[in-house]
Amino acid sequence: MKIAKHKLFFTAAILLMVHSVRSQDSIRYVDAATLLMTGKAKTTDSIYQRIDTVDTKGMPPAVINLSKQSAGIAVLFETNSTLIRAKWNLPKEVYMHNMTPIAHSGLDLYCMKDGKWQFVGVARTGKGVNQNQLIVHHMDSSMKQFMLYLPLYNGVSELQIGVQNNAVIQQPGKPGVNKAKRVVVYGSSVVQGASASRPGMAYPAILQRRTGYDVINLGFSGSAKMEPALATYLATVPADCYVLDCIPNPSPEQIRERSYSFIKYLREHQPTIPIIVVETVFRQNGYWDQKVGKTVKEQNNEIRKTFERLQKEGYKNIYYITTDKLIGNDHEATIDGIHLTDVGFMRIADAILPVIKKALKEK
Amino acid sequence: MKIAKHKLFFTAAILLMVHSVRSQDSIRYVDAATLLMTGKAKTTDSIYQRIDTVDTKGMPPAVINLSKQSAGIAVLFETNSTLIRAKWNLPKEVYMHNMTPIAHSGLDLYCMKDGKWQFVGVARTGKGVNQNQLIVHHMDSSMKQFMLYLPLYNGVSELQIGVQNNAVIQQPGKPGVNKAKRVVVYGSSVVQGASASRPGMAYPAILQRRTGYDVINLGFSGSAKMEPALATYLATVPADCYVLDCIPNPSPEQIRERSYSFIKYLREHQPTIPIIVVETVFRQNGYWDQKVGKTVKEQNNEIRKTFERLQKEGYKNIYYITTDKLIGNDHEATIDGIHLTDVGFMRIADAILPVIKKALKEK
Repeated sequence: MKIAKHKLFFTAAILLMVHSVRSQDSIRYVDAATLLMTGKAKTTDSIYQRIDTVDTKGMPPAVINLSKQSAGIAVLFETNSTLIRAKWNLPKEVYMHNMTPIAHSGLDLYCMKDGKWQFVGVARTGKGVNQNQLIVHHMDSSMKQFMLYLPLYNGVSELQIGVQNNAVIQQPGKPGVNKAKRVVVYGSSVVQGASASRPGMAYPAILQRRTGYDVINLGFSGSAKMEPALATYLATVPADCYVLDCIPNPSPEQIRERSYSFIKYLREHQPTIPIIVVETVFRQNGYWDQKVGKTVKEQNNEIRKTFERLQKEGYKNIYYITTDKLIGNDHEATIDGIHLTDVGFMRIADAILPVIKKALKEK
Repeated sequence: MKIAKHKLFFTAAILLMVHSVRSQDSIRYVDAATLLMTGKAKTTDSIYQRIDTVDTKGMPPAVINLSKQSAGIAVLFETNSTLIRAKWNLPKEVYMHNMTPIAHSGLDLYCMKDGKWQFVGVARTGKGVNQNQLIVHHMDSSMKQFMLYLPLYNGVSELQIGVQNNAVIQQPGKPGVNKAKRVVVYGSSVVQGASASRPGMAYPAILQRRTGYDVINLGFSGSAKMEPALATYLATVPADCYVLDCIPNPSPEQIRERSYSFIKYLREHQPTIPIIVVETVFRQNGYWDQKVGKTVKEQNNEIRKTFERLQKEGYKNIYYITTDKLIGNDHEATIDGIHLTDVGFMRIADAILPVIKKALKEK
């Protein structure tokens, strides 16, 4: 009787192992580099970085470093697999007190449904979990188009997408994000995506889903300071519209010294492309910390003066968004006074989108 | 000349040290236990835990463990200090892929301004930074009332609040949260506060600030399963209104088996207190994962049947909120399909608040 029980147990264990091996066998991983990339300013030698090393020459080291982070880049593909998994390699372990690991190092999956991008699920991150992470399963087996956003505050050295072995996975025939219109957003951590809950909630990504435009995230946390090298680079990035949300980082003095020549350079090298200048989000702790409050007001005063000067000098096709329009007035849109939560990102997208549409003369 | 330079350098260095020591000296730390506590179901021997060990007898170990986390507890005080610092001890280091360190282990400060609670700043957390953390400085020196929310997914063994040495810090004369009305919310991680960006964005805290009521967070992540011991306990917690948002965790079978007797027990032991029953937030991945979608529908079907049965049997003063009212329909309110971001928490607060007002017969 005892032996019989043991036999039964071993048989069950072996069946379980076979089943488990089969389940694993049935997944096929595909290199994401063979699929369609969106959110990229230009092609780069390392596919998941934002600026090529050829272009970063002369940029500050902090910007060069941040340009290796994959904020705003997403992979488009279609598949009829009922499950989607991911393997991705991160160059470093990140800790941020004001971001979730999903946002700084995880992946965020959307699917096109009835002409709209709809959230599907995330790939969580953490020690050793990036090597076969389930994002969604138990879907129906119809062909669907997916978009997978990459980490906001980490790099990706390799990314593979896992589907059922017998499923089709390929570049989408009609991409739900297209390059017919390109919006290039240059700015600070607010652009890069601190503190979105997940990669798809940074505001350039929200704008991208709402419009279907290719929206390029050139957010450099703490480092969007309008250096000449950045103007030079920006003018070489193909765009139908530039958004300059780069007032949070430079000091009032730096804005006074740099913003006029920065915008003028961009205007002169891209004479027909609309430029949208955005004041800094008012730091919510600045309502209490009088020094912070004073600095933010001075930052916005300086950029406003630059805008008025450019207008006076006859530069056309420059739009301007004031701080009071950006994140509402209930003071609940940030995690720490400056970095927007999803509440803030939804609101700033609501504020900027109509101006982009106007600039592009689209409805 | 060289010597003179060195002398100057050393004098400057010493002056800097003296200044720095003086700056540190000028901070006075006060034990938060001497101030006013809000968000507590009852008094407990360890002041920053939610349920006393006397009351946890018979509860599942997971609930007992989670009741030691400080979700929903806040300290009220008034001070004329121009800066506020904090020291707090955490019993453990927490990693959560779907929460920020500020939310699970940090502190979140509000101030009463023109009769409303307004966000001030957060105390970030991380290895060794909890021992003298600046939350805000450079404020004016008027007397103000503050509320400091404690961590959502960690405990606090000790908390001290730092102010200028010569400043007043005391219990507020007219607390901006009062016990005239008490709302007790029992539920899952959605109640406990995953995935708010910071402690003050869990929805019980939002409800508390919007109403001034004492709102008690009895959210037990993954563990709100309506065991009899929880009904017994809940009926002993003084309340003007109970909110039961405990459908996400139990299986449909558990809801069928437990919800009727759970609500009936509470109704019979608190015959005059309104009870609001909330369906589970529809898991957003359930629109894709057919198994998840089916389970969520079954969970809500089961609780709806219980509600209808109680109504049919003549139990009064029970309110019911359906899932379609809770978090909007753009699928952008969660971080991972189930856990709400600040977007979701603002929306669920909007949905539940009018029902609480109606139940309390308040405008």
